[in-house]
Amino acid sequence: MTTGKGRVISGITISADGYSAGLNQTEERPFGDDGGDGWGDKLHAWYSDTADENKAEIEELLNAKAFIMGRNMFGPVRGEWDRDWKGWWGDEPPYHAPVFVLTHHARDPQPMDGGTTYHFVTDGIESALAQAREVAGDGDVAIMGGATTINQYLSAGLIDQLQLHISPLTLGAGTRLFEGVPQLKLEQVKARAASLVTHVTYRVLS
Amino acid sequence: MTTGKGRVISGITISADGYSAGLNQTEERPFGDDGGDGWGDKLHAWYSDTADENKAEIEELLNAKAFIMGRNMFGPVRGEWDRDWKGWWGDEPPYHAPVFVLTHHARDPQPMDGGTTYHFVTDGIESALAQAREVAGDGDVAIMGGATTINQYLSAGLIDQLQLHISPLTLGAGTRLFEGVPQLKLEQVKARAASLVTHVTYRVLS
Repeated sequence: MTTGKGRVISGITISADGYSAGLNQTEERPFGDDGGDGWGDKLHAWYSDTADENKAEIEELLNAKAFIMGRNMFGPVRGEWDRDWKGWWGDEPPYHAPVFVLTHHARDPQPMDGGTTYHFVTDGIESALAQAREVAGDGDVAIMGGATTINQYLSAGLIDQLQLHISPLTLGAGTRLFEGVPQLKLEQVKARAASLVTHVTYRVLS
Repeated sequence: MTTGKGRVISGITISADGYSAGLNQTEERPFGDDGGDGWGDKLHAWYSDTADENKAEIEELLNAKAFIMGRNMFGPVRGEWDRDWKGWWGDEPPYHAPVFVLTHHARDPQPMDGGTTYHFVTDGIESALAQAREVAGDGDVAIMGGATTINQYLSAGLIDQLQLHISPLTLGAGTRLFEGVPQLKLEQVKARAASLVTHVTYRVLS
């Protein structure tokens, strides 16, 4: 829970059955099997095709002053950093702030255009959060995902607010939000239906 | 999918992590472990405490002309019908129409006040649906639950529309909607935030 000033917020897109990615994730298809046969990346269609309509929900997270993400969200490289990977988001990522990437493999900070710098944290989620808080000051820290990372922070009781973007499909298998997370008491803060998604924001009470 | 006139609709209350009941269901606590320590039956608080606010969603299902439910939703009796159990809903259940209960154990029909009659179907989900369709005519057939029954009908491609009532808590374990159901393409028909729940209605496309 919040110990200081800013909040620790998180947000993630899930299927109606709670998966944030299907099986068989690859560099070409980072969200894995999502229905195929032209169904395409339906999971994130609300974001890619109707961003204007969902500006408020997108900006709430991106307005954070520091970000944390798991290594699998950062990129497809596994093991040692044997490739010069700089994230999925091009030369000027949308974060404009420090991004702490959880990894077991040390690497020098990677500055990008527009104020984003990727920092690689090898000593765990609490250390990453402490570093992010330090940088964020009164601003929010955003846990960006993926689900495995969010599940770790939820299990540790470190998330104040969680935004779900529920997309109209089921994946049946894959990486599931809340998997292995103990029971949580939530307060529904707000919810909104857009054309391709339902947004629900929860305060995490315990 | 619809072969004739009325639709096959379904609706169920789930936690934010997709469970319709926790572990350790008993006659006294038919939805099992749901957080304890005064948290009480938060899963269904939207229905028990704020029914007026959610009238439209409640009535859409109850306006059906025939109903189907699993035996565990009907009651706590397992195996042979060695108790005179007549459902959880008192002498005048809210269905006012035939209710087909899926069971492996034959039993004579049980008429109740107000037009509800419980019929016990021992030859499977497709037979129950055929009987319900026959009775419902142009009206809807409602698959009432629990999740295990809905999952069977979803897997068989027999549900046209599914209403989720998402309550603000997670259960972490229990009976999960969509468990074992193959990938589904859905169309988000509508969604609405009420004070204790978010309602989302999907058309099932495949």
